[in-house]
Amino acid sequence: MHQRGRFITLEGSEGVGKSTNLAWVVAWLEARGCEVVQTREPGGTPRAEAIRQLLLDPEPGEPLDSDAELLLMFAARAQHLALKVRPALARGAWVVCDRFTDATYAYQGGGRGLPAERIAILESFVQQGLAPDLTLLLDMSPEAARRRLQRRLDSHNEQRDRFEREHTAFFDSVRRAYVERARAEPERFALIDAEGSLQEVQSQLAQVLEARVAAWS
Amino acid sequence: MHQRGRFITLEGSEGVGKSTNLAWVVAWLEARGCEVVQTREPGGTPRAEAIRQLLLDPEPGEPLDSDAELLLMFAARAQHLALKVRPALARGAWVVCDRFTDATYAYQGGGRGLPAERIAILESFVQQGLAPDLTLLLDMSPEAARRRLQRRLDSHNEQRDRFEREHTAFFDSVRRAYVERARAEPERFALIDAEGSLQEVQSQLAQVLEARVAAWS
Ligand SMILES: Nc1ncnc2c1ncn2[C@@H]1O[C@H](COP(=O)(O)OP(=O)(O)OP(=O)(O)O)[C@@H](O)[C@H]1O
Ligand SMILES: Nc1ncnc2c1ncn2[C@@H]1O[C@H](COP(=O)(O)OP(=O)(O)OP(=O)(O)O)[C@@H](O)[C@H]1O
Ligand SMILES: [Mg+2]
Ligand SMILES: [Mg+2]
Repeated sequence: MHQRGRFITLEGSEGVGKSTNLAWVVAWLEARGCEVVQTREPGGTPRAEAIRQLLLDPEPGEPLDSDAELLLMFAARAQHLALKVRPALARGAWVVCDRFTDATYAYQGGGRGLPAERIAILESFVQQGLAPDLTLLLDMSPEAARRRLQRRLDSHNEQRDRFEREHTAFFDSVRRAYVERARAEPERFALIDAEGSLQEVQSQLAQVLEARVAAWS
Repeated sequence: MHQRGRFITLEGSEGVGKSTNLAWVVAWLEARGCEVVQTREPGGTPRAEAIRQLLLDPEPGEPLDSDAELLLMFAARAQHLALKVRPALARGAWVVCDRFTDATYAYQGGGRGLPAERIAILESFVQQGLAPDLTLLLDMSPEAARRRLQRRLDSHNEQRDRFEREHTAFFDSVRRAYVERARAEPERFALIDAEGSLQEVQSQLAQVLEARVAAWS
């Protein structure tokens, strides 16, 4: 497979299996001879990861203003795009990213109630037209996702971050925002039912990838 | 003096005497019975100060993208306005701030060459019309400012931050951008010759303050 690389993102609420399946997508592409850059947002470069720390810090001393949160998110994104994503795409590599701007619309928009128009201002400011070629949206009920996440937290003895402490109504809104975005851009999104076993999820992913990658070549 | 508080900013390149004279302006207002909140940018609240650390960090491992820098600056500003400046003004206090958005136009715009229109997008996004009532611009030649700053660094054995490492051409552009902004908004700005002794500078400041504060009451 010697085609130019594309920009693929994985999206979905906490615990749906983004990170687990990202590794699988990367392996799938590499098995076909692609150069793949695996990354995540917020973060993906040292300075962007430092911004991520500020965003996720659950011990504030003071609340984080919602505009400030949004600007930090896009500051990390600008850094990540400039230093890692754009250079990779420019040399023909594939970029597979754990969360991207759809997450901003789902969390800061759907979850926290920031108007989508305000998010759109920063999106166009930072991305200047750059968008993923394919977004794999892992979808499952918030209750099932919470059970999965709880198992992971228990087994690793981890603390919840600022987002993981939100309530079920918040995750319902996040999910709804994601699904609405997928409906509005059906060519870019692939909706994956993430409630089944890993094998079931990955057979859906394989189907989507075969079809899309064939269509691009 | 029982009038509602106003928003006063101090601007100017490195070493012109902003911090020194800020304390003097605060004392001047307090001597007249005003409640004064003294603050600075980037920073002014714990989370905004944490963002400041990311901005000034001279040991990157990687360069800071100019859009990311601008977004971080406005993230700190959004936090500072929401948590400190707007609440103070709302209860009638005066706010005296060491640097504000004019510094963004002067440094990121004039110094680093970011188009003013891009800065203006974030300014209106974050400030939504809020602007200083009075901006005291301390102006002096970059060479004289550098000599002052060098004396301070030597005497405190301090390290230069990312901005202080820039060259003279950079500071020339910063100064030019400041002076152009003062010309464009003469009602808001007061241009102070900062090259004289502290006493000379402060007698100019006193004159400006007497006139402005009288006009506001
Ligand atoms: N289809 C699946 N069936 C069962 N368990 C799964 C499945 N997918 C993922 N898991 C498990 O669920 C947990 C959460 O998965 P993962 O960390 O990949 O989710 P995530 O979407 O990346 O979460 P976060 O948003 O917190 O980063 C992990 O312990 C993972 O092994
Ligand atoms: N008019 C003046 N005459 C002589 N020295 C001065 C004068 N104003 C300030 N200084 C001295 O110059 C140094 C720089 O002043 P100051 O720290 O107030 O500048 P600044 O504008 O806040 O700098 P920075 O941008 O680095 O924060 C200090 O050591 C201060 O005491
Ligand atoms: Mg994950
Ligand atoms: Mg100072």
